[in-house]
Amino acid sequence: MTTTLQDCRALDAQDPLAPLRAHFTLPPGVIYLDGNSLGVAPKATAARVADVVTREWGTDLIQSWNTASWFDLPQRLGNQLAPLIGAGQNEVVCTDSTSINLYKVLSAALNIARKDSPARRRIVSERSNFPTDLYIAEGLCKERGLELVLVEPEDIAAALTTDVAALMLTHVNYRTGAMHDMAAITAAAHAQGILCVWDLAHSAGAVPVDLNGAGADFSIGCGYKYLNGGPGAPAFVWVHPRHASRFWQPLSGWWGHAAPFAFTPDYQPAPGITRYLCGTQPIISLSALQCGLDVFTAAEALGGMAALRTKSLALTDLFIQLVEERCAGHGLGLATPREHARRGSQVCLTREYGPHAPPLRGSLPPKGAVTALGRPVAGDSGAYAIVQALIARGVIGDFRKGDGGNGPHKDILRFGFTPLYIGFEDVWNAVEHLRQILDTAQWQRPEFNRQHAVT
Amino acid sequence: MTTTLQDCRALDAQDPLAPLRAHFTLPPGVIYLDGNSLGVAPKATAARVADVVTREWGTDLIQSWNTASWFDLPQRLGNQLAPLIGAGQNEVVCTDSTSINLYKVLSAALNIARKDSPARRRIVSERSNFPTDLYIAEGLCKERGLELVLVEPEDIAAALTTDVAALMLTHVNYRTGAMHDMAAITAAAHAQGILCVWDLAHSAGAVPVDLNGAGADFSIGCGYKYLNGGPGAPAFVWVHPRHASRFWQPLSGWWGHAAPFAFTPDYQPAPGITRYLCGTQPIISLSALQCGLDVFTAAEALGGMAALRTKSLALTDLFIQLVEERCAGHGLGLATPREHARRGSQVCLTREYGPHAPPLRGSLPPKGAVTALGRPVAGDSGAYAIVQALIARGVIGDFRKGDGGNGPHKDILRFGFTPLYIGFEDVWNAVEHLRQILDTAQWQRPEFNRQHAVT
Repeated sequence: MTTTLQDCRALDAQDPLAPLRAHFTLPPGVIYLDGNSLGVAPKATAARVADVVTREWGTDLIQSWNTASWFDLPQRLGNQLAPLIGAGQNEVVCTDSTSINLYKVLSAALNIARKDSPARRRIVSERSNFPTDLYIAEGLCKERGLELVLVEPEDIAAALTTDVAALMLTHVNYRTGAMHDMAAITAAAHAQGILCVWDLAHSAGAVPVDLNGAGADFSIGCGYKYLNGGPGAPAFVWVHPRHASRFWQPLSGWWGHAAPFAFTPDYQPAPGITRYLCGTQPIISLSALQCGLDVFTAAEALGGMAALRTKSLALTDLFIQLVEERCAGHGLGLATPREHARRGSQVCLTREYGPHAPPLRGSLPPKGAVTALGRPVAGDSGAYAIVQALIARGVIGDFRKGDGGNGPHKDILRFGFTPLYIGFEDVWNAVEHLRQILDTAQWQRPEFNRQHAVT
Repeated sequence: MTTTLQDCRALDAQDPLAPLRAHFTLPPGVIYLDGNSLGVAPKATAARVADVVTREWGTDLIQSWNTASWFDLPQRLGNQLAPLIGAGQNEVVCTDSTSINLYKVLSAALNIARKDSPARRRIVSERSNFPTDLYIAEGLCKERGLELVLVEPEDIAAALTTDVAALMLTHVNYRTGAMHDMAAITAAAHAQGILCVWDLAHSAGAVPVDLNGAGADFSIGCGYKYLNGGPGAPAFVWVHPRHASRFWQPLSGWWGHAAPFAFTPDYQPAPGITRYLCGTQPIISLSALQCGLDVFTAAEALGGMAALRTKSLALTDLFIQLVEERCAGHGLGLATPREHARRGSQVCLTREYGPHAPPLRGSLPPKGAVTALGRPVAGDSGAYAIVQALIARGVIGDFRKGDGGNGPHKDILRFGFTPLYIGFEDVWNAVEHLRQILDTAQWQRPEFNRQHAVT
């Protein structure tokens, strides 16, 4: 039995989380399926930021370090975030960028793992991990004479040998939306004496995470995706209490000092997660992050992350179903796992490129396609042009080029589904736009723009 | 001939930079002499930040990475800042925190200096350098098995031996306001094959700096003091072009990649200063920094940094003169050099503590003083209580505890003079408040608060 627009509207009408949408600014005419790249603005943020600029900074000036508690904002936000990721109180701080926090925890992981086992000379990660994670690991390996080993997801288990110091994985893959079993992989790593570093960039606020339940060692993540903290919002870092006070992280700045205002020339790290702070934080951006976290606090009364997960899976199930029902015959594949336990909160469609690119309506025979500029190029997947046509209609997803390397030659059309503000009718409309674009070969016409498109 | 209030008003009337004050939000009843800790808010910032939140983020969402040029904001702000510090175009980026930028450049300096001279195992710095700089250096030394040597300012020259890799100094001392001769010290270090890292936290926007003219190697600095970028504003980093492309800095994140959107698994550093970027930046805070820099751009037409320096010296000269004329007999000393070439844009007064603490009106005989809570404690300098009494009157300076170590036992009353928004009558009034507090022993009465104090 096929699903109809009326069915989708009925699902929205029954959605217990629907009131959360009112917490956000959603531009008119836009179906925003890119919250996995940059979350939308909470309505509260503009006023909060204005207050920080005009009152806390403008009027109260340096006194706000105390009166507005600027100084412990990283810890306060960390405590607010903690329940979303299965962390305890005083185990998380919001600070710096994801890349920098990864450098801190990966350094600490290497120090701890190699202290008694210097033969552990490897970091294992996934080849399709988000590149900046690989760059940071590569830099550390270069600095310390270690080796970064990159494997495919199915080869992770076999790579966990006793010469490995740390396993560094992103919980939900940024390209495919595939989710790892954090508890099982952590246990397998620990069985070999390997420490686990989890990047939650596409998990925090998107799927329930239980860092302590999984026995994870270190974790970092991003404030500007599902947490809706604003462009480039400060990131977060969590360290299991069994490790948090064991080593200095190398970015040992004054905010991580045991007595930051004693101004002593020697560094004495603060106990616990506070030593993972470094320098003075960008207070305006950090304050904006709080508004994103406040929506999750409000969501607690409606079922919290468990309810958000239920809705997220319903949204992504529906999107997959509708694409397969209504966009069949256009050579679209599915990169995201169908199995719920292995899926994050995004769906990635594929179009193959190269000599085996499937036909696409409007493309040049036999395998010609067009670039974004409308010029025919044989073997182009057409995926970029389709995403551009969707954006022109107000359906914001994004395009990821196939890696052209060892993986399959597939370009990716990526769609994030944030259950805080995306509804079932949005899913229907997004697929309907996609269907129209494919059926009428509108993806060939870059001049087609948003003003004609909002329906 | 003593200076009068009328003289100060005449100086303000003749001040060519006086119009710049209108660019800032100054709370009524406040004389803000703490711009060396946190600069005041430019009037333009609130609207700029609101636009970033509501339009760039709220409405345009991810498109703003391109349409609002978020992605190259670190470079654009760096180029705007460059003339203030004697840097060329495309030599500076605004990013991350001062501590993190120091880690980047100090790592690079060590790599370069030690590449052909592994016997260079020392970093030399000043014992009274800002502690976070020392902590970062200490961490790097610990990590690499090197030695951090801390000396007094007068011993720097003797410490520049051929086993030193890098000399790391803050150009203007945060406690005393004493300024180093950057060109002379850099030349002395280079003569021994030592690279120089200059922290401009209390220099950028405060005094003219000529990094290229001095032949400096690396520099970092702060956005939230004299640059008025907002609380915890992103910092900056400059690397001389002769070094910029030579080594990876260790925080090798995707924003420093030669092709950040190619998402290749291998790190390829961008040419030049761009490789000193790491992760995604806090765009709201970074945008606010631009408003601070815009005031310096506006100041160009009024004579720029040279005119600001002339006024800064006139303000600090006047403050010293008035304190000595009007507050004599209260045991106040001067930590800041009288010589213009050695003075930054702040003045630090001292009060000795311990058994030789000079008498202070209202203190217990023979050497009793009081704590901030008004309880008599023999040997207290009284400096903290004096600063609190000034703050209660709306004169915002700050207190720095004497180090109690090798240096003289002197507490510091610190006053920053930002010529962008401080005038000569402000200086008169600040000293008049100080005089009243000392003459009437009001520093003994913590209940004295601002509402009684604005005169």
